Amino acid sequence: MIIVIQCADQVGLVASISAVVAQQQLNIVSMREYVDTTEHLFFMRLEVEEIVDPTELELQLKTVLPAEATIHINPLPHKKIAVLVTKEYHCLADILIRNFFNTLGATVQCVIGNHDDLRDVCERFGIQFYHVSHADKSKDTFEQEISHLIQPYQPDYLVLAKFMRILSPAFVAEYPMRVINIHHSFLPAFIGANPYRKAYERGVKLIGATAHYVSNELDEGPIIAQQIIPVNHSFTVADMVNAGKEIETSVLAKALKLVFEDRVFVYNNKTVVFE
Amino acid sequence: MIIVIQCADQVGLVASISAVVAQQQLNIVSMREYVDTTEHLFFMRLEVEEIVDPTELELQLKTVLPAEATIHINPLPHKKIAVLVTKEYHCLADILIRNFFNTLGATVQCVIGNHDDLRDVCERFGIQFYHVSHADKSKDTFEQEISHLIQPYQPDYLVLAKFMRILSPAFVAEYPMRVINIHHSFLPAFIGANPYRKAYERGVKLIGATAHYVSNELDEGPIIAQQIIPVNHSFTVADMVNAGKEIETSVLAKALKLVFEDRVFVYNNKTVVFE
Amino acid sequence: MIIVIQCADQVGLVASISAVVAQQQLNIVSMREYVDTTEHLFFMRLEVEEIVDPTELELQLKTVLPAEATIHINPLPHKKIAVLVTKEYHCLADILIRNFFNTLGATVQCVIGNHDDLRDVCERFGIQFYHVSHADKSKDTFEQEISHLIQPYQPDYLVLAKFMRILSPAFVAEYPMRVINIHHSFLPAFIGANPYRKAYERGVKLIGATAHYVSNELDEGPIIAQQIIPVNHSFTVADMVNAGKEIETSVLAKALKLVFEDRVFVYNNKTVVFE
Amino acid sequence: MIIVIQCADQVGLVASISAVVAQQQLNIVSMREYVDTTEHLFFMRLEVEEIVDPTELELQLKTVLPAEATIHINPLPHKKIAVLVTKEYHCLADILIRNFFNTLGATVQCVIGNHDDLRDVCERFGIQFYHVSHADKSKDTFEQEISHLIQPYQPDYLVLAKFMRILSPAFVAEYPMRVINIHHSFLPAFIGANPYRKAYERGVKLIGATAHYVSNELDEGPIIAQQIIPVNHSFTVADMVNAGKEIETSVLAKALKLVFEDRVFVYNNKTVVFE
Repeated sequence: MIIVIQCADQVGLVASISAVVAQQQLNIVSMREYVDTTEHLFFMRLEVEEIVDPTELELQLKTVLPAEATIHINPLPHKKIAVLVTKEYHCLADILIRNFFNTLGATVQCVIGNHDDLRDVCERFGIQFYHVSHADKSKDTFEQEISHLIQPYQPDYLVLAKFMRILSPAFVAEYPMRVINIHHSFLPAFIGANPYRKAYERGVKLIGATAHYVSNELDEGPIIAQQIIPVNHSFTVADMVNAGKEIETSVLAKALKLVFEDRVFVYNNKTVVFE
Repeated sequence: MIIVIQCADQVGLVASISAVVAQQQLNIVSMREYVDTTEHLFFMRLEVEEIVDPTELELQLKTVLPAEATIHINPLPHKKIAVLVTKEYHCLADILIRNFFNTLGATVQCVIGNHDDLRDVCERFGIQFYHVSHADKSKDTFEQEISHLIQPYQPDYLVLAKFMRILSPAFVAEYPMRVINIHHSFLPAFIGANPYRKAYERGVKLIGATAHYVSNELDEGPIIAQQIIPVNHSFTVADMVNAGKEIETSVLAKALKLVFEDRVFVYNNKTVVFE
Repeated sequence: MIIVIQCADQVGLVASISAVVAQQQLNIVSMREYVDTTEHLFFMRLEVEEIVDPTELELQLKTVLPAEATIHINPLPHKKIAVLVTKEYHCLADILIRNFFNTLGATVQCVIGNHDDLRDVCERFGIQFYHVSHADKSKDTFEQEISHLIQPYQPDYLVLAKFMRILSPAFVAEYPMRVINIHHSFLPAFIGANPYRKAYERGVKLIGATAHYVSNELDEGPIIAQQIIPVNHSFTVADMVNAGKEIETSVLAKALKLVFEDRVFVYNNKTVVFE
Repeated sequence: MIIVIQCADQVGLVASISAVVAQQQLNIVSMREYVDTTEHLFFMRLEVEEIVDPTELELQLKTVLPAEATIHINPLPHKKIAVLVTKEYHCLADILIRNFFNTLGATVQCVIGNHDDLRDVCERFGIQFYHVSHADKSKDTFEQEISHLIQPYQPDYLVLAKFMRILSPAFVAEYPMRVINIHHSFLPAFIGANPYRKAYERGVKLIGATAHYVSNELDEGPIIAQQIIPVNHSFTVADMVNAGKEIETSVLAKALKLVFEDRVFVYNNKTVVFE
């Protein structure tokens, strides 16, 4: 069972929280805590061996925590997700494979593509695929069609697995800190479109990928994970795109694992990640 | 102030320890703990803002800890070291530079070389250099000469910065888990002499370096830090040696920083490292 | 078109070879060469824009090369492979996905498992799966059954994608330097079974994976690619196994790409790799 | 002996060049070539065992190369450098140490600091240190003072080893593609001042360092080498600065080695690097 706490910092928090946990005879398997001493914020992730009634435990924790504390207790952590894609298969296929073999830490409920290219691979794994074209309609209509499809599933997270349309602030606001994107550059370098072309023109010696929560600003949301690989003068833009796919796949997989295991906290447009 | 605790695990340890700390109005800046659930061992490193009397705090901690608990409280953590070298300069020079600019986290008291080659660089920094040749004498005599020189300094750690003689178990036993070596391979690959030649002959695509505590068995002590760099078919043995020097320097620097900041625990010939 | 040459070194080889290529009005897109100056061996990989008759070009090259030279000219490089597996899906699934989307650089002709677990994922992609149990039969019989199944496909390479049986020298000899294995350790550390348990017990701070050709000696064949990831004291053996899967997948993918693009030469139980 | 050629591409260049080299009975130890097929540019670096008269060889090479070809022949490659610093010691000390032990591949002729802090470490190694304060004078005067000091040394390169003043285009123009800077970020992310603060505020998970030639635009010159290290939420700005120093040191050392060994070509504000 995982217990996740975020609140204002005060002296004795660890003592009070661990006292509550000890009273309940819960055995702490792993405890991670972090204090942002500038912002006076306290973050804790506890893993205990036993599974108990979350309601009672939450009540007891509230008695020792500041009023505004956020407490999440996940008896059986397992998330539900919807995946948005365009044409590129690599991130989606990795998610589908892990989903199929039950190692994703979440269940893929459906996949929505603004192109129809990835229907086949989804259907081979028995995953519902919806094609919602963005052509010949307003962004508003496009997003309403997506929302309408997603709603019945009540997913915990939307995963943008190389979804190449920019979502409106209104859409994103429906899923606050629940939309996860993979951006094909080492943010904040090369924000926006065609990052590999920009990287090529700048003559960089490393290229990167960044998994982040989507906020209102393009490519400006809290970063969850980043990774790079070396490139050199002999790489064309196409070579960089291909090399980048490998780390896009791997950094998105890593970020999803962290999020699904309740290891990521968000504040001030940054993340605390207990790896 | 840093508080370091190692003891048998039991329910409620975090609660009891943090209660003691809170009673003393100490503000925890950082807390790291780990439980080896197989061996039922508990490890904790606490950093508190305030500096208080260690004797009193230790007494209070003892009242809540199991009988055999190891407690170290470092009010002003700063270590003293003696460095043993042979002919290669890279690790020694890095230590001397950090020592000179007060960023080593320790004070170099003296350097002992079984060759005289590195005297000049030491003396340029005003560091006492002793030449103790191993030639024409027994290992026993050789080590007694070294011991005799070191003793007045009472160093906390001996650092083997590319010291190419094997120390006897008797010598090492004088400094239990206080002798730190840099081995020029990714242990346990290529134990013993000429690891780069062996790596070359095996045709590996990565070479490594390992910083570890010295125990009785050659290159078998607890590992503190490891690092690798890529190599390829075009590397001669000499190229590997040169490339290796860069990571030997950097992995030893990293290991020393971890040890000097009291972030490394040893048990079962392994380390717990709170990075 | 790719031209690959391996021969004894002699002065003027590059001049003679490039003169032949220039005579044929072939435009060199990329040229890589390496001379092992100890062994006096010459290796070259040429990529030219045009596609011409290989027979004629080979004849002309032979006139300027030493007698024993090996020349391979691949007008349309595309390999055929058979994949051997046991129960773990990660390497196989990665291969199947790339095969499905035509980015593998080879065609998967069939998959053979000594367990039946991975039949489903193969069949979802329309790939023929054969179950050949090793139980209740001699290794000889087991391998004959596999050989018999493979033979009609005439694959260029056998890929051991986490195939957990040791193949006999006799079997391997049928496919000299054409069997590629992924070993779940940073060879030559932790040769043989249970490398992650051994890594755990040794307390290493990095774990690795190695893709190599299979030779007669267990885990002693020429290394194609290696990769590592950091681990720490909190990793159980199971955590290491899981972390290891990510690099096993990625290092095997990298090695296969190198081999399928004719970038790997073998000699003296080592490889020359023109990345 | 090293031969470096940069010219317009044409069919048969490798053949013609290697024919010239073979005629002279020169034994090629290593040959690297690259063609930018978009810009139709050809780059080659040759290492031959023998040392011959460069004038005669250059004449012969000119007969087979396009008119505008750049040819550099270094019989005894060893460069001379002047180093500019401010207060931070880490890059300078690394250079001084390598210089002292003759492993830099260049000779440090003098060090100029706009603060006096690093005089001591220079003088301990017998290196001439000049203090040129930027205070109370125009940039023009400041730079003239520096130029005046440097001129008698005729250095091949100026190395900005954490020199924190921006040099004017006029000054840089005196040393075209001969001023090498270490920038404390992963360019093009965090151009300009305080990159670690910006990285901290953006919440990145990796920080980088970039060695590049200085051109007219701030931090926009051709990149030679880049490197990154992971950071996390627990890093303060000061922690990032300290972690960054390690890679600044190492990436500058790597870039200098590449430049001093004539492995770096510049065109279109990018580099070709034959590692």
